[in-house]
Amino acid sequence: MTAISLDDARRLDRDDELAAYRERFVPIDPGVVAYLDGNSLGRPPQSTMDRLEDLVVRQWGSRLIRSWEEGWLELPERIGDRLGAACLGAAAGQVIVADSTTLCLHKALRAAIALRPGRTEIVTDAANFPTDRYVVEAVAEELGLTVRWVPTDLAAGITAEALAGAVGERTAVVTLSHVAYRSSYLADLAAITELVHAAGALVVWDLCHSAGVVPVHLDAAGADFAVGCTYKFLNAGPGAPAFLYVRAEHLPGLRAPLRGWMGTEDIFDMDAAYRPASGLRRLLSGTPAVLGLLCVAEGLAMIADAGIERIRAKSTALTRLAIELADAWLAPLGFTVASPRADERRGGHVLLSHPNAANLARLFNDSGVILDFRPPQGIRLGPSPLSTSYEEVWTALNRMRALTAAGSSTVLST
Amino acid sequence: MTAISLDDARRLDRDDELAAYRERFVPIDPGVVAYLDGNSLGRPPQSTMDRLEDLVVRQWGSRLIRSWEEGWLELPERIGDRLGAACLGAAAGQVIVADSTTLCLHKALRAAIALRPGRTEIVTDAANFPTDRYVVEAVAEELGLTVRWVPTDLAAGITAEALAGAVGERTAVVTLSHVAYRSSYLADLAAITELVHAAGALVVWDLCHSAGVVPVHLDAAGADFAVGCTYKFLNAGPGAPAFLYVRAEHLPGLRAPLRGWMGTEDIFDMDAAYRPASGLRRLLSGTPAVLGLLCVAEGLAMIADAGIERIRAKSTALTRLAIELADAWLAPLGFTVASPRADERRGGHVLLSHPNAANLARLFNDSGVILDFRPPQGIRLGPSPLSTSYEEVWTALNRMRALTAAGSSTVLST
Repeated sequence: MTAISLDDARRLDRDDELAAYRERFVPIDPGVVAYLDGNSLGRPPQSTMDRLEDLVVRQWGSRLIRSWEEGWLELPERIGDRLGAACLGAAAGQVIVADSTTLCLHKALRAAIALRPGRTEIVTDAANFPTDRYVVEAVAEELGLTVRWVPTDLAAGITAEALAGAVGERTAVVTLSHVAYRSSYLADLAAITELVHAAGALVVWDLCHSAGVVPVHLDAAGADFAVGCTYKFLNAGPGAPAFLYVRAEHLPGLRAPLRGWMGTEDIFDMDAAYRPASGLRRLLSGTPAVLGLLCVAEGLAMIADAGIERIRAKSTALTRLAIELADAWLAPLGFTVASPRADERRGGHVLLSHPNAANLARLFNDSGVILDFRPPQGIRLGPSPLSTSYEEVWTALNRMRALTAAGSSTVLST
Repeated sequence: MTAISLDDARRLDRDDELAAYRERFVPIDPGVVAYLDGNSLGRPPQSTMDRLEDLVVRQWGSRLIRSWEEGWLELPERIGDRLGAACLGAAAGQVIVADSTTLCLHKALRAAIALRPGRTEIVTDAANFPTDRYVVEAVAEELGLTVRWVPTDLAAGITAEALAGAVGERTAVVTLSHVAYRSSYLADLAAITELVHAAGALVVWDLCHSAGVVPVHLDAAGADFAVGCTYKFLNAGPGAPAFLYVRAEHLPGLRAPLRGWMGTEDIFDMDAAYRPASGLRRLLSGTPAVLGLLCVAEGLAMIADAGIERIRAKSTALTRLAIELADAWLAPLGFTVASPRADERRGGHVLLSHPNAANLARLFNDSGVILDFRPPQGIRLGPSPLSTSYEEVWTALNRMRALTAAGSSTVLST
């Protein structure tokens, strides 16, 4: 099988209208040949440092407490609105940026379940991300509900067909990942949302692996709730706040599951009994993490500037290139492509499978190809469209080929 | 009544062995005459900016995903241990830094209540901080418990005597603020903890207004749980993560109230069912907020360097000076001191009361004396020992006197 040449990869970079963004990130240390972990931790835009300096020196250091009234208090909603417009297909007033994905998911599930009293089941994918499974179990235990686990073939992913038998009149909420964290399977958000609604239930989408790389159309699909993190394709930094989407029609009467002073109508009327804020703000709990919020704003600004559709197009081309090279170079060495080959069913990363994945992943990382091992046999490649070049993907796969071939006598036997 | 002169205040600054720390903060804009809101938002140490630059450029930008294994994952416990040692009187393994105070309080209450099955009441102070009251109500609602509100005279504060009648065999948990956010009343943590334990109940302390300014001795007092924020006297910045203390003897068998992947035994063994981490780590939920955590480390380093006992001594002297000047200058203008006059019963701030406090607070702030209005009639002065000079307190009170006297015909009539 002939593979694309290095010259071909370089030609793709020359023709790439998003190529210039690559220079706008903080440089990686020279030992790194390729960074294919943008789906675990995106790289920092250089402008994030300027933004933080302005925050620390001017807003926090000089304006001090006055900055709360000068904009900080509105950041969760303001940045949420921008995120909704740029990446989520969500009109204003439906997204806040706060807490972690874990806690946002807890809030979303609790709020959704409260909207479906009398129903007794939460449905989720048995292969869902760990924290999603733990939160589902914990919430079910707390409320005396049952979890219905939909068994999914790792490569096939979650489909409307697979769900059809599991969702019914007992279902309160269905929660699923839009893009599977291992296989990269891209679920049909619209079709599944429709199926869930037909059963009278609500859906909570986890967008961790799609926000910033796969266009999402929450409003158009009629999705009810969604959550996700900002430190992957949104490049907002380690532990930056997560986001929470609630469809506008669910806002009236929505009960806040984890109440706090930031979710009240008048935060500084401190004598008052609890009076929830009128909009989505009521789902806020504690004091907004301002540093993290500004990093979200900065990462998002670049995404918005590049445009999510162009980002998706490059992302698809990058993962397709990785698959083609894997087929040509790595299949003979025992690798198989464990992600969907159809572009429209694949998210922003590619999973390769190998019986010795754990050792190989360590070897690759030690040799400057940064990627993830995902048990049991997965090696995950996550090119980030604005910071990853075609040449980088080519170089990574080429290095993986050489290392596997050279090390096959030693590494594969350990 | 004669008051201390400006020269006297300057002499106090010359004799102040902590005076040099003042130069180590980012400067405030020149329009500010005095910043007396360190108990709402502490000022940034200049070194925080260097720390953030190292984080963004080297750890995040250059090392990228590898930084999780190179230290980030342990930050919640590592910085928690340092905080415990420097400020809380807590041995290692009992403090984590994570989430917000609101969510930490939720976790602490839920965990504490689970340790006292069959008991039906949560006891708290009717004048407690809003978010504490909201969390208490929400948790009680969720679990079908009753809230017993202890009525407290705002100035008198919460005493063991006031609690004695409210705490009994039905009490699961008592939760109180160590330093009252309005009056600054400093509760007797050891005596109240003993009283609560005598009834077989557990206590959850809110240390928001004491951490970093009043020495706390959680281990010695036998306290069960504690929470608090880091953006006041710990100078960690707007929305920096909060902390959560759990007494070591409660760790075995402790159930995590808001489960997540960061609280499991092996975070990256992603196929596994939920297995809680063995120590306090099990109370973590989502991905640690690394930027905020490093700001906590930086603020805390300065506190640890100065020493909490020396900080407390200066804090007491600063608030005593504010009270003396208020008695001399502001009492004739209608102000009364609403904080305890006894040093050992007063936290790090001073509350003044005035019938026209809302308008006066606005006037003072507009004129460069930054302080807080707290309904219904409170003006709150929060000098931060490492960044506030005696002269600054003197100047603030002098300015307040002049503004009140000059404006009395106009301001007081609005």
